[in-house]
Amino acid sequence: MNDVYLNLIASAHGSQTEFNDADTLGQSAADCDRIVKKTGVQSRPIVGESEYTSDLALRATEQLLLQSTSTASEFDGLIVCTQTPDHLIPGVSSRVHGKLGFRQDCYTMDINQGCSGFIYGAHLMAAMVRSKALQQAVLVNADCYTRLIRHDDLTTRVLFGDAATATIFSTQPSGFRLLYSRCYADGTGYEDFIARGSAIQPDSGVAQGIHMNGPGILSFALRVVPDAVDSALRDNGLNKSDIRMFAFHQANSFVLGKLAYKMGLENDQVPQNSAELGNTVSASIPLLLLDQQDHLKRGDLVLAIGFGVGLSWGGALFEYVGND
Amino acid sequence: MNDVYLNLIASAHGSQTEFNDADTLGQSAADCDRIVKKTGVQSRPIVGESEYTSDLALRATEQLLLQSTSTASEFDGLIVCTQTPDHLIPGVSSRVHGKLGFRQDCYTMDINQGCSGFIYGAHLMAAMVRSKALQQAVLVNADCYTRLIRHDDLTTRVLFGDAATATIFSTQPSGFRLLYSRCYADGTGYEDFIARGSAIQPDSGVAQGIHMNGPGILSFALRVVPDAVDSALRDNGLNKSDIRMFAFHQANSFVLGKLAYKMGLENDQVPQNSAELGNTVSASIPLLLLDQQDHLKRGDLVLAIGFGVGLSWGGALFEYVGND
Repeated sequence: MNDVYLNLIASAHGSQTEFNDADTLGQSAADCDRIVKKTGVQSRPIVGESEYTSDLALRATEQLLLQSTSTASEFDGLIVCTQTPDHLIPGVSSRVHGKLGFRQDCYTMDINQGCSGFIYGAHLMAAMVRSKALQQAVLVNADCYTRLIRHDDLTTRVLFGDAATATIFSTQPSGFRLLYSRCYADGTGYEDFIARGSAIQPDSGVAQGIHMNGPGILSFALRVVPDAVDSALRDNGLNKSDIRMFAFHQANSFVLGKLAYKMGLENDQVPQNSAELGNTVSASIPLLLLDQQDHLKRGDLVLAIGFGVGLSWGGALFEYVGND
Repeated sequence: MNDVYLNLIASAHGSQTEFNDADTLGQSAADCDRIVKKTGVQSRPIVGESEYTSDLALRATEQLLLQSTSTASEFDGLIVCTQTPDHLIPGVSSRVHGKLGFRQDCYTMDINQGCSGFIYGAHLMAAMVRSKALQQAVLVNADCYTRLIRHDDLTTRVLFGDAATATIFSTQPSGFRLLYSRCYADGTGYEDFIARGSAIQPDSGVAQGIHMNGPGILSFALRVVPDAVDSALRDNGLNKSDIRMFAFHQANSFVLGKLAYKMGLENDQVPQNSAELGNTVSASIPLLLLDQQDHLKRGDLVLAIGFGVGLSWGGALFEYVGND
């Protein structure tokens, strides 16, 4: 079957910035310093008053089309991964499709996945391209979790940022070659990260918005991420030292530090970009790839691992093949 | 590449029944008779007070596992198509995964699609199975649109029922062989069928719930369904008379009658099942296949066409291959 490549990445951020400072959080300066030091998150992009996920998705996709040699009409797939759609009916992808002039025989659909959404999306895109169901397609990862964050819940509020990425997948050999992907789930953790009252079930008697079982999610991440890394290495006959970059979902510095320490990884193998982005859910891995690709050489291996709500996680191994 | 089969279908209905009668609708008996005569819908299953999409999805999947020779741990994919999830975060598939003991390396995700969701889902499952990303997987189609129907909006209320189906896709040669599928979208019709205030965007100043541009949707259906039929026939070198059964999305009798008339189809080529189900969104086509499969002979061709919200539509051609 065909090789599949992630050719191009573009991004968009929420139009406002929220700082993890005393004025914003209503905490003492010393407490805010501790928060920033522990999480690594100084500020985060957030959506403006009348800005929604489809606006982020539109801007990221417009940016992608500007940078691409292809026009909207040359893509036969448009998949938007989001957990914070403008409406339940229809999906965000429909709005993007209509506004940007994608063609009528374009497979256009939303998928719902959180911090593993880029891996789940890449796995899906790869299957579609390999089986020739799609030739050249766009995957958008877009969320505005801050709309569901309870302002008084500092355990989540200081972490999440709103952003979107748009990526092209095709058989064209440029960018990152997808060598391997594998996805996992453990639905017994359904309630460990849940947005109460966010869709059809009212969840009365509980505060509306995101509820995170912080210790549960941390112990989950420290268990499954090393396992997913080991599986990916074993399945591909590789060692940790063969991997130039571990593109972990940018949960926050505290979690990434613990993961790197537990796996004995070098600091320069585990880049981070959450200081001014926070946790941007399924956009965090492509945002990191976008930031880091100038530091990569042809042949460098990148192992991306997403993990979070669901519970759900997955790994994807890429080879950087360059862009000319 | 491998052939892909839809092996087995199971279903679940909302636990209550709503009749299109004078008591329920608050209209005169004569008006209700006219509604029933025009739409063909006498009654519809609806969810009970504390019943949500995940409950329908669970029951349909439990039923599927009871009928299947495989246990939950033998499936490596679980995709739930819904537009009415219990929560935005996580998806319905997570709850089903956790409750029914699916395994950890099961690709578990929600997709958001309406009345074209079975075709979009089948296209996705086929790509995943053909590319060997999945071996044997479950597609669930589940919705409780009645939660978003405005009770005073009779144009939608009399039509929709709540139900779920669960289907198995694999390379095992039984049931229906999927010969062909193609999916379409026109996002310029984003607002023609929209659930206002249903997710992140508040849509203040408009009544919350489903708003349907009835004439717009009707003219859309009368245009794209014949086109999708023609494309499917042309792409497969077939004539209308080669098709034993047109499994149209069960919008309602009025729409299906107009479609059959416009395309010059025989009544027995266009079965209907909406009298006691109504429009069950993406579950309607698999519910129809389940009802009708006893009337099929090996080698019979079935052309399924889904169409609706998005706007979005698609066609899938199946050959019935039997079950022994």
